[in-house]
Amino acid sequence: MKIISGGVCAAKGFTAGGVHCGVRKNRTKRDLAMIFSEVKASAAAVYTTNLVKGAPLTVTKNNIADGKAQAVICNSGNANTCNADGIEIAEKMCAIAADTLGIDAADVVVASTGVIGQPLSIVPFESGIPAVAEVLSKDGSEAASEGIMTTDTVKKEIAVEFTVGGKTCRIGGIAKGSGMIHPNMATMLVFITTDVCISPAMLQKALSSDIADTFNMVSVDGDTSTNDMVTVLANGMAGNAEITAEGEDFAEFMKALNTVTVYLCRMIAGDGEGATKLLECNVSGAKDVSTAKTVAKSVICSSLLKAAMFGADANWGRVLCAIGYSGADVDVTKVGVTFKSNKGEITVCVNGAGVDFSEEKAKEILLEKEIEINITLDSGDASATAWGCDLTYDYVKINGDYRT
Amino acid sequence: MKIISGGVCAAKGFTAGGVHCGVRKNRTKRDLAMIFSEVKASAAAVYTTNLVKGAPLTVTKNNIADGKAQAVICNSGNANTCNADGIEIAEKMCAIAADTLGIDAADVVVASTGVIGQPLSIVPFESGIPAVAEVLSKDGSEAASEGIMTTDTVKKEIAVEFTVGGKTCRIGGIAKGSGMIHPNMATMLVFITTDVCISPAMLQKALSSDIADTFNMVSVDGDTSTNDMVTVLANGMAGNAEITAEGEDFAEFMKALNTVTVYLCRMIAGDGEGATKLLECNVSGAKDVSTAKTVAKSVICSSLLKAAMFGADANWGRVLCAIGYSGADVDVTKVGVTFKSNKGEITVCVNGAGVDFSEEKAKEILLEKEIEINITLDSGDASATAWGCDLTYDYVKINGDYRT
Repeated sequence: MKIISGGVCAAKGFTAGGVHCGVRKNRTKRDLAMIFSEVKASAAAVYTTNLVKGAPLTVTKNNIADGKAQAVICNSGNANTCNADGIEIAEKMCAIAADTLGIDAADVVVASTGVIGQPLSIVPFESGIPAVAEVLSKDGSEAASEGIMTTDTVKKEIAVEFTVGGKTCRIGGIAKGSGMIHPNMATMLVFITTDVCISPAMLQKALSSDIADTFNMVSVDGDTSTNDMVTVLANGMAGNAEITAEGEDFAEFMKALNTVTVYLCRMIAGDGEGATKLLECNVSGAKDVSTAKTVAKSVICSSLLKAAMFGADANWGRVLCAIGYSGADVDVTKVGVTFKSNKGEITVCVNGAGVDFSEEKAKEILLEKEIEINITLDSGDASATAWGCDLTYDYVKINGDYRT
Repeated sequence: MKIISGGVCAAKGFTAGGVHCGVRKNRTKRDLAMIFSEVKASAAAVYTTNLVKGAPLTVTKNNIADGKAQAVICNSGNANTCNADGIEIAEKMCAIAADTLGIDAADVVVASTGVIGQPLSIVPFESGIPAVAEVLSKDGSEAASEGIMTTDTVKKEIAVEFTVGGKTCRIGGIAKGSGMIHPNMATMLVFITTDVCISPAMLQKALSSDIADTFNMVSVDGDTSTNDMVTVLANGMAGNAEITAEGEDFAEFMKALNTVTVYLCRMIAGDGEGATKLLECNVSGAKDVSTAKTVAKSVICSSLLKAAMFGADANWGRVLCAIGYSGADVDVTKVGVTFKSNKGEITVCVNGAGVDFSEEKAKEILLEKEIEINITLDSGDASATAWGCDLTYDYVKINGDYRT
């Protein structure tokens, strides 16, 4: 497996594009993205668990109920959520896309992201969707990834090449996500494309299994979004024998999918609103995976720990505190904690109590951009990883006045 | 019932004091508080549910297992948590207090608050405890309330006078709490004194029942502390017939206790680390109390909503979002939201969708120091209230470098 360029256009038969259509007032910022497959593809998706759901999710769910889709249309700048006519607008977006592309409206995945509860006019899409279809190209992944950004500061895309049954396959993805991100749901907007040939059922199985260890293990701020989803389109153009069951081919695909999703998770966490650091919490020695996940997520979600990491302060007591209130059944007298970065690793807690360590060395380690918080529970063999970011002045600034 | 002065010294037979003993380097900041009852009192307490518990909690729990106590000793500046010799130090603190006061060490409530995982020396207490005993007086509540402060910016004390069985009684309390505060536990350090005559069992019953609607409904940052507890000493010196069962006297006492605890909850939330505003979330029309509480706490805990309140931004979509991910079974199409303050009230959401409102008026309302977020669920008669605060630059500043 190797990393290649092209993002969501890396896989055979996929094109993409992004334009400014007018949902956002700022004309320099793209606000509409489209992804298109030459042929109808297997489709799978996971959705937010928030009871308040964006209208586009309902429409997408209906459209891919048959396991098939051929295009994705997504705007930023408005979430189309808590609007009385939300479903109608989302359906119209699909209809315009279908007309433009000459496909069935029921084969369109529709998504929106941005502010909640502000009416979304169909007008910008009437010219915007034909305009984005016009610019669809093999080079369009980057423009599409820009079109779905909200408070994101960096584009998030990746693609890898791998082999299934002797055939070279590709899988790539783009993502947006910076705030309103919290584990225990299908989070964020992530669009993944692949030319692997796989049945809709196995594609859904792969995605649902993968997100449990990837997108569901990311938190920026503890707020589970209303709108986010992860979708995969697999158009089969790589020519491999269709994957219809578990086995070697499925395992190869899972590995490639996981490479893409872990990369995007890290991108999302590291670009969390206001973040200066990517935090990765690795828990090992847990009695079971559920315990390891609970502990990792609790630590990564602690506002106090996140603020300490912003200040490069080795305040490990806050790690212990977050383990203690996580709800996981942990023997706190066995807990060990180390901090690690490119500058080295330092042990700060053994058997639940502090050890002497160099504050100077700890500071040097914690001043880096990517920090590992490594926790050993000494109670078994299970492990888990969660990703998050520090809590900064800029998080407050961005969210103190998001709408204006 | 009326509000009176005197704090924890308002009740007959209680004195208190606070001094600087040297746990903190800053000699201008008091770091040790003592409360003393002339006679042995009924004692009740509730403790953090964090698995990582401060050593003083274990010692206090043992000491009041018999339902009796006569003095409280509490230091700030060091939590005495995750220290190998923590229990030993806490026990020594009790022994010194007992020697000094001429009481039994098993009648001392001991507490510590401050940074976790740093060794706590007994040395400052060897002279500090006799010194604080020396200054015990009827005017000492304020000094005691200062002695327990950490990042608190204001002293938190209150007392009320009420009548039980024809006898005038008094109840008062002091509290500290600013960060590491989150519902679902006994939070913070709160010391309450009363001269009511009540059995230990009924005192515990009153306290345990009360905190479910008061201290367990407060959140500053979602971090459940390792050290915090609420204790009540009732020394019986008011001379009422002992309360040994439910009934009119017990109800009167509960009402007075609740007045004290709600006041302290509001003080704690409003003085949350970095806070500029007190937020009160009132949920009504819920199908049951548990639903109302879950919704109120979810809203008050949302980082996004808290940042919006800091910015006086009427971003009600974040209220809906937090209701949606709360886990409560709510019909989101029936939800209504209003914001209220001294400047008036404004409806922003009806039946789960936005309504036209004046952004100017909303801004005026939200610029006040105390904001109500009022939510109607239209599904029953149950209600609940939670308290919190906004998320600000100063929260990040305070917690980015707490230890140095």
